[in-house]
Amino acid sequence: MKYYSYEHFKQDTNKLINTLNSLEIESIVAIARGGLMLSHAISEGLDVRDVQSLKTEFYDGSKKRDYITIQNNCIFKDVKKVLIVDDISDSGETLKTVIDELKQKHPEVEFISATLFFKSTSIYEPDFWINDADEWIEFFWEKDFLYDFKT
Amino acid sequence: MKYYSYEHFKQDTNKLINTLNSLEIESIVAIARGGLMLSHAISEGLDVRDVQSLKTEFYDGSKKRDYITIQNNCIFKDVKKVLIVDDISDSGETLKTVIDELKQKHPEVEFISATLFFKSTSIYEPDFWINDADEWIEFFWEKDFLYDFKT
Repeated sequence: MKYYSYEHFKQDTNKLINTLNSLEIESIVAIARGGLMLSHAISEGLDVRDVQSLKTEFYDGSKKRDYITIQNNCIFKDVKKVLIVDDISDSGETLKTVIDELKQKHPEVEFISATLFFKSTSIYEPDFWINDADEWIEFFWEKDFLYDFKT
Repeated sequence: MKYYSYEHFKQDTNKLINTLNSLEIESIVAIARGGLMLSHAISEGLDVRDVQSLKTEFYDGSKKRDYITIQNNCIFKDVKKVLIVDDISDSGETLKTVIDELKQKHPEVEFISATLFFKSTSIYEPDFWINDADEWIEFFWEKDFLYDFKT
């Protein structure tokens, strides 16, 4: 288990920003909740004002997770290039489903994906990612904000 | 001009989480972009999985900012209490417009608002806020993430 600190996040996100800067991204979509902080940070670094979010839900058929549904009401007005961000491509199912559905709904838009972590067993590889996920990651947003937190 | 660091944000957000914890909030709406990091942090602290975002746009009639429109496609399924978060209630216009519109669209839902900063000249006072905004605030997300950032 590895604690992923804000300082580490800051360094990695700035690396992503440097890589993404030339791509002329016009809109950013965060996959909630994991991609929310990252979307905010990248949007500031790239000066992209249009940030939207969507969330996914697993539905159980029996006890097995059956399929993912997306609450997606993204609006792209005259937008050609959209960045999809999440913290990690772990199984890759969420990102694959999201990208597939967005492409189908918005065939005129080019979608690019970026994450902080990528697991080699993921069924989807983001266009841009920073770290191999070789162990369980505890993101700072999962540890730093707690009810009755003692500072 | 005051730099508002991640450490300061962490302390203030945990104060908000302690205050909000007993309210049984079921859903969180971030006003993008300012409220995105805060919504993520509070959702972790309160263990609220439903986080959505909306964004506002100013339209110019002439040179004067005329009115605010909201890109709001929030979905509340069987949700009774929703927290709206933004970084600051400055003029208060954004928050006032958002809360008024959400109340009108979703009369069955109770909306509660929370910000990190509140300016005494604001036309809207959030239900919960932490700091007086007596000078210009530079939020860490506006300074820590930049193209060609040198760490």
